[in-house]
Amino acid sequence: MPYFDAASAAPLHPVARQALLASLDEGWADPARLYREGRRARLLLDAAREAAAEAVGCRPDELVFTPSGTRALHDGIAGALAGRRRTGRHLVVSAVEHSAVLHSAAALEAAGGSFTEVAVDRAGRVAPGAYAAALRPDTALAALQSANHEVGTEQPVAEAAEECRAAGVPLLVDAAQSLAWGPVEGGWSLLTASAHKWGGPAGVGLLAVRKGVRFAPQGPADERESGRAPGFPDLPAIVAAAASLRAVRQEAATEGARLRALVERIRERVPALVPDVEVVGDPARRLPHLVTFSCLYVDGETLLHALDRAGFSVSSGSSCTSSTLAPSHVLQAMGVLSEGNVRVSLPAGTAEEDVERFLDVLPGVVASVRHQLGAPAAPEPVSRTTSDLVIDSLGKRCPIPVIELAKSIGGVPVGGLVTVLSDDEAARLDIPAWCDMREQEYVGERPAERGTAYVVRRRT
Amino acid sequence: MPYFDAASAAPLHPVARQALLASLDEGWADPARLYREGRRARLLLDAAREAAAEAVGCRPDELVFTPSGTRALHDGIAGALAGRRRTGRHLVVSAVEHSAVLHSAAALEAAGGSFTEVAVDRAGRVAPGAYAAALRPDTALAALQSANHEVGTEQPVAEAAEECRAAGVPLLVDAAQSLAWGPVEGGWSLLTASAHKWGGPAGVGLLAVRKGVRFAPQGPADERESGRAPGFPDLPAIVAAAASLRAVRQEAATEGARLRALVERIRERVPALVPDVEVVGDPARRLPHLVTFSCLYVDGETLLHALDRAGFSVSSGSSCTSSTLAPSHVLQAMGVLSEGNVRVSLPAGTAEEDVERFLDVLPGVVASVRHQLGAPAAPEPVSRTTSDLVIDSLGKRCPIPVIELAKSIGGVPVGGLVTVLSDDEAARLDIPAWCDMREQEYVGERPAERGTAYVVRRRT
Repeated sequence: MPYFDAASAAPLHPVARQALLASLDEGWADPARLYREGRRARLLLDAAREAAAEAVGCRPDELVFTPSGTRALHDGIAGALAGRRRTGRHLVVSAVEHSAVLHSAAALEAAGGSFTEVAVDRAGRVAPGAYAAALRPDTALAALQSANHEVGTEQPVAEAAEECRAAGVPLLVDAAQSLAWGPVEGGWSLLTASAHKWGGPAGVGLLAVRKGVRFAPQGPADERESGRAPGFPDLPAIVAAAASLRAVRQEAATEGARLRALVERIRERVPALVPDVEVVGDPARRLPHLVTFSCLYVDGETLLHALDRAGFSVSSGSSCTSSTLAPSHVLQAMGVLSEGNVRVSLPAGTAEEDVERFLDVLPGVVASVRHQLGAPAAPEPVSRTTSDLVIDSLGKRCPIPVIELAKSIGGVPVGGLVTVLSDDEAARLDIPAWCDMREQEYVGERPAERGTAYVVRRRT
Repeated sequence: MPYFDAASAAPLHPVARQALLASLDEGWADPARLYREGRRARLLLDAAREAAAEAVGCRPDELVFTPSGTRALHDGIAGALAGRRRTGRHLVVSAVEHSAVLHSAAALEAAGGSFTEVAVDRAGRVAPGAYAAALRPDTALAALQSANHEVGTEQPVAEAAEECRAAGVPLLVDAAQSLAWGPVEGGWSLLTASAHKWGGPAGVGLLAVRKGVRFAPQGPADERESGRAPGFPDLPAIVAAAASLRAVRQEAATEGARLRALVERIRERVPALVPDVEVVGDPARRLPHLVTFSCLYVDGETLLHALDRAGFSVSSGSSCTSSTLAPSHVLQAMGVLSEGNVRVSLPAGTAEEDVERFLDVLPGVVASVRHQLGAPAAPEPVSRTTSDLVIDSLGKRCPIPVIELAKSIGGVPVGGLVTVLSDDEAARLDIPAWCDMREQEYVGERPAERGTAYVVRRRT
């Protein structure tokens, strides 16, 4: 049963399992204690810290273990902001950061600070120079992911670090998705990561803070982990995390190349096999193991369940799979189609046959979901009845408004307008994306009595 | 090699190990995902929550898993304080709470709030009625441990909860040391605990918040664990924590009675076997597995190392074993001797022979440390030379100032004064404690040109 959601959590690496089992007996005591069990635990902790620091490319005393990547981001951002409070309370982030970063930015704003979101292009990439433009005299910190968790696009971290360095602003790099594949290049100041992304156990994050970076841990004081990560450390998990990071790095070049080729196969063949698909994310500057595409006229949740029944575990940034019924903020920032969104992220060791089988199964699954939803199977027949049309899609969720638009556009003459009334958040993203894909003109949106009116001009 | 420091961390319970291993394969995926691995993880998480809630005595939806007991306390206190910010920003704690509580109180004060420390008696127990006296109209929260982690004394939690209820103030109970032995009685509002204290893995804490208690999670938003514990949950550890809590509870009555008798044996025999020892903590209302005593004229760190060489792992609240060179705040609050402090906390399954062997070994180890330090072997001979004496112990660490006092007291006549000059923080606690044990009169302290002058009048 192929599991294709490594970007959420990778299954435990065999080396992680071995290390975890071995350290259950040796690593349960308090490493701060003076007796033998404590000293033994301390040795394990020190060795794990050295191994992790080597993989990150920092000094062991610059790195602490946190209970998760999310906590590393929350605590790292809070500590870095507080360390430079005298400079100001402004934070720069990219628009496609992990929610832990964006929620940290929101918390800063709620506490009286402010932040700037740097936009990305349609591939999800921040423009070089964009950080330089966003930095202000009162900017305390900037944050940029090494690679995007939803579409795989690599960010120009080294360039952004250079821009930050020139402005005297520390750069925090969220390396959660890329650390398995190699160290983060460039002059970053802080770095975070999460072990269960590389096949380590859950419960372990990393926070590295370069010497010389001002850092003031927030929250109640605690002696553990240089005062930067409160609470008794989960030593067996930490040992397993460090051991598996070393192991995946040894396999990274070979396995990365192999998965990159498999992903390339998906990127090329999905648009050929499935009509009306948009593959998103940078085709070249990307993570080796991750690919995301969106299917017009498809409900993401139904598609996920259908793929699950067919034996494939994938995730989706479609609005229907989110608790807020909003499409993924990453897809929104990129301005790409969100309906029928599928993220495939291959764990290390994924068999070629499984990818082939996925490509075999996908077209039928998408067709069946489209059929259920009454999606237009082919471009609708062109008739020239009325000049303008208004479609009431109020109360209907993604992808219905887009399906109704596609079915109706043939009902107006070329040059005529179709106005879709919708109160579904996904329509804001998906109607313009549909126009792009269909070469129709997206005129714009305006508030309606209920919901929003999206106006489209027929071009072809 | 007997390990007698269960109050720091207990070795992994066999049931915890089994559950951990079993769930490494089933519980690595994201429980928030819709595919089969996610649903499987969700089932495990739900089952663990139900088991833990049953052991705590709350509803499953009142309980979340945190990355440690410390984080449960930090986040629980912060959330409860913020939830009642309109009422005020005053916190009541006992003077002998875990450092995570006291550091939370200090953080509140640093942020403009205030707190009251409720004093304890010489047994380490809060007086009934003390909470009622400390509660104010602007009190947002009160915190009281179920039992003390250093001396084992049980607190009157049910009475304190009643006093808090009457005043409309929620009570947070830190149940870290007692939850293995049974649920916390009384009408608490919030409860925290830590799995590695009961033989679960590190990396798992519990935070229970009763329905109806105002609670506003602090820090950046996160959807996990009802928004109360950010970060990807460490599911195998959570499953193991819940399974082992249920297992230790099944053994609690039998094993508690057995360990209680072993501890009673230590409490009775140590003062008979070792001269100049004070056994501290409540003799009856106490944890079954924990006993603490302090030895005059002994350096805690040297004693720990000597016991370690003899094969026994214990901890100490002596100043020399702390990074701040201050005696444990618990012993300070109790006003008892801190030098040569030893905490013995027996893990479940401790063999009677090991306790016997400890009692065999201890007298020789203490005598040898005393001999090294030049401690007075017997009461010093009484001579009546000078009327008053000043001893310069500046720059000398615990237990040297007390040793020098003991050696000199015979040099003044009955009624004469001995003044000890010391800049060691432990002297403030240990010189009065020595006077108590030796039936000498402690006159008081006053600032000296360097350090502090402690004045003792010879009585016998």
